[in-house]
Amino acid sequence: MNEWKNLDELKSFQTLKNESHPVDLTKVMAGEAGAGRVAAYQVPMAAGLIYSYAAKQVDDGVLNGLKALAEEAQLAGKFEELYNGAVINTGEKRLVLHQLTRGQLGNAVIADGTDKRSFYTKQQEKIAAFASKVHGGEIVNEKGEKFTTVCQIGIGGSDLGPRAMYLAMENWARKNNAFRMEAKFISNVDPDDAAAVLASLDASRTIFILVSKSGTTLETLTNEAFVKDALKNAGLDASKHMIAVTSETSPLAKSSDYLAAFFMDDYIGGRYSSTSAVGGAVLSLAFGPEIFDRFLKGAAEEDRLATEKDPLKNPAMLDALIGVYERNILGYPATAVLPYSQALSRFPAHLQQLDMESNGKSVNRRGEPVDYPTGPIIFGEPGTNGQHSFYQLLHQGTDIIPLQFIGFVNNQAETDVVIQDSTSQQKLCANVAAQMVAFACGKQDENRNKHFAGNRPSSIIIGEKLTPEALGALLSHFENKVMFQGFLWNLNSFDQEGVQLGKVLAKRVLAHETDGALKAFSDLLKI
Amino acid sequence: MNEWKNLDELKSFQTLKNESHPVDLTKVMAGEAGAGRVAAYQVPMAAGLIYSYAAKQVDDGVLNGLKALAEEAQLAGKFEELYNGAVINTGEKRLVLHQLTRGQLGNAVIADGTDKRSFYTKQQEKIAAFASKVHGGEIVNEKGEKFTTVCQIGIGGSDLGPRAMYLAMENWARKNNAFRMEAKFISNVDPDDAAAVLASLDASRTIFILVSKSGTTLETLTNEAFVKDALKNAGLDASKHMIAVTSETSPLAKSSDYLAAFFMDDYIGGRYSSTSAVGGAVLSLAFGPEIFDRFLKGAAEEDRLATEKDPLKNPAMLDALIGVYERNILGYPATAVLPYSQALSRFPAHLQQLDMESNGKSVNRRGEPVDYPTGPIIFGEPGTNGQHSFYQLLHQGTDIIPLQFIGFVNNQAETDVVIQDSTSQQKLCANVAAQMVAFACGKQDENRNKHFAGNRPSSIIIGEKLTPEALGALLSHFENKVMFQGFLWNLNSFDQEGVQLGKVLAKRVLAHETDGALKAFSDLLKI
Repeated sequence: MNEWKNLDELKSFQTLKNESHPVDLTKVMAGEAGAGRVAAYQVPMAAGLIYSYAAKQVDDGVLNGLKALAEEAQLAGKFEELYNGAVINTGEKRLVLHQLTRGQLGNAVIADGTDKRSFYTKQQEKIAAFASKVHGGEIVNEKGEKFTTVCQIGIGGSDLGPRAMYLAMENWARKNNAFRMEAKFISNVDPDDAAAVLASLDASRTIFILVSKSGTTLETLTNEAFVKDALKNAGLDASKHMIAVTSETSPLAKSSDYLAAFFMDDYIGGRYSSTSAVGGAVLSLAFGPEIFDRFLKGAAEEDRLATEKDPLKNPAMLDALIGVYERNILGYPATAVLPYSQALSRFPAHLQQLDMESNGKSVNRRGEPVDYPTGPIIFGEPGTNGQHSFYQLLHQGTDIIPLQFIGFVNNQAETDVVIQDSTSQQKLCANVAAQMVAFACGKQDENRNKHFAGNRPSSIIIGEKLTPEALGALLSHFENKVMFQGFLWNLNSFDQEGVQLGKVLAKRVLAHETDGALKAFSDLLKI
Repeated sequence: MNEWKNLDELKSFQTLKNESHPVDLTKVMAGEAGAGRVAAYQVPMAAGLIYSYAAKQVDDGVLNGLKALAEEAQLAGKFEELYNGAVINTGEKRLVLHQLTRGQLGNAVIADGTDKRSFYTKQQEKIAAFASKVHGGEIVNEKGEKFTTVCQIGIGGSDLGPRAMYLAMENWARKNNAFRMEAKFISNVDPDDAAAVLASLDASRTIFILVSKSGTTLETLTNEAFVKDALKNAGLDASKHMIAVTSETSPLAKSSDYLAAFFMDDYIGGRYSSTSAVGGAVLSLAFGPEIFDRFLKGAAEEDRLATEKDPLKNPAMLDALIGVYERNILGYPATAVLPYSQALSRFPAHLQQLDMESNGKSVNRRGEPVDYPTGPIIFGEPGTNGQHSFYQLLHQGTDIIPLQFIGFVNNQAETDVVIQDSTSQQKLCANVAAQMVAFACGKQDENRNKHFAGNRPSSIIIGEKLTPEALGALLSHFENKVMFQGFLWNLNSFDQEGVQLGKVLAKRVLAHETDGALKAFSDLLKI
């Protein structure tokens, strides 16, 4: 039986805090010692990826302390409890089952009178059959023409994850004859968002996917109405252009307004839903069900690694532990996510939601205030773009911000050009290697303005190429990292009252209830 | 004569630190007091915008302290010194003249033997004439067809600002018959970036703009070569499809490889270059020179407000002072930028560069280490998307993060839909008002998980609609805010050694110099 204790109640945490010393990266990352560290401080991940923590401020002493912390916090046991179907989401009193969408890690989980793994698999099969019919020309528009475009209408987790995954695979799919349909996304309630997306597509050849678990998210229903209006004005029958992804109990589930409906349930939070029907419908339509399946396989393989008890063999657990060391012992306020891959341009935005919505909490899973910092700020942009922008502060600012690099040895499109004796891809790789060493080791200069103190920690996930499997592994790695950090901080990482609040308040303002949010902020200053 | 002192050497700062108390927003922002505060704590900006600081943790006492700080730090005097042509960029020993691209604030500035205002104006006139010829069909492609697309090749400030400005105006231009050419952007050295952008446009109808002040930025030259390769493979003459924006002394300036060249100079930093030829060429081609001119007028009008000595009449100065109060007295680590406008989707990324690259420094303008925190982390995404994502941490996380909202009463496209008795735009406005009040006042709940402590400060810039003038004013506001904060922290906000470092290091790794960044991070773990 696992014990759920606050981080500061754990002896191993106090020991780590009082006795450990962060290493001086300017010393240990140089010369032969540095090369040895790089060789030693890495863990294999799924799909051929590697997690390297050589440039983190840890040594064997700190790592042993973190190992003791993992044991005392019963991280592996708590994950086991989760995937075997315990009510881990204590706030909403729900199971947490997103891992089941891609594999069976433990015992069968029966809920709502059904085997949940079968339930998710069945939805995937339904989606695959539907997508194949669309691609094969069995499901067509009113004129008998094939659909060319798919447009997701959703917000938050129904948007950020699937959009990031689509962008991550778009060029790979084009190169590998797996590009079936272009995908677009409407999320913001700002009407200019929907208007611009609609102007960019041919509605008569488009399938719209309405994604809302509850079927009541105001932004999404508003955008659905916006799209239906546009379809009607174009003389199109909306029910022949729309499918729904929702829960079985939602008002959308059995509506004749949709060509088809695919289901998720309350055990999958929005930010964990990319491997459920929420990501499955749009990605299977865009790239074919086989590619979505490969993505799931990568995630499942990475999930299995996350069950390892030893953090040195469990990259997600190790990443989580080092992150807590940085946040709660070294006192760093944020983490920057820096993929050296244009395909991952929106991956930081997905991780921003995943992490900040899961662990941006001040009370523990029993609703009691905690006395230590929890989730950090997460932000990032692709390198090399970030290098020409906010890296200035990362190198020479007054706060230290840990860095999460991601890189690949080869690019997706396989088109490249040699300039000054190197390809663009080689330049990209040279940049990420150079940056990691520079952040760690710094650079001495008598001109203080050109002096770099170094000792700015980073880790990197490296792969051969960003494939569907590698993407699935990446996604799973961060989901599990966030989960383990939630366990360490003793948080419920699976509710989001701060997001629910916004939904309620805006509705009240629109209904002119109570003082109408200070009379809609004094009628927006009466412009 | 202005004295350049560190923040902690200023008596008024010490007084503020020792004697001021942040207000309790949960009390002052409720009921009649709150309404009074909203009415009083606002400053008009240019182009009809309003800066409201009612939901900041300040009262008249704190404001008086900030006023004293502004005086002792000689903020107005230092700005005057800057726009009259002093060497404010002490690191690189350069003048700082981006305001001159949109107006003459003080005396004529003569440098390099020329009146710099005339120089910038002349470039704008050359660009306007060129754009008019392209739009009018005088400058056409090899087949005599009109150009339909413009593609900017640049990185950092040559990308983020112009791209954010283009996206901000795209829908407005379409609605107002000002849309002339679609714009695309290639920035990342990742070859998949250039490949994907090239796949999305018709090269035979595209003008490419190569933007590099020095003419030596490796990423940009690499992408130029990538594009030239593609043009050649398509049987096109690159020199009929490319223009350059560069300095007069760069190797690109007089090359016959370009249809035309437009000039900037060393007195305009990349992140401050949206109103120079760097933004001017792409925006004038996309929307016509008249629209670019309106954008400049908005910026010039806002610059003029920034010359006001009294911070209560100078929104940029006031914003800067409150930011320093939050960073150096209240100890907050970051600022979130939250535009309730899809058109401003990349505005936070521009501000991230502008702010973090300018003030992410640990030494003062004389190169001496400072003992206080300087530039914060800047990040953000458009509301309402952010609401369904990282707002969880903003509401209930353990760190307080000040918020910068931006909103407009009307949308750009003027298309909207009524659902549940309100338009989408009304919902958007209801959301931003509700959020500001919720962050300030919190929400009591016996269930601690649904309890919101409040006291999370925010400000908002509100406008009637996002027009070219409003966008110019917004841009200028933040440029001047960052400048005033640099003055307060006694930094040189106009160099970027942390970014220069990356350029040098990657070149060394590629040349296998020294230990080749730990042998290119042990050959990227030998995958």
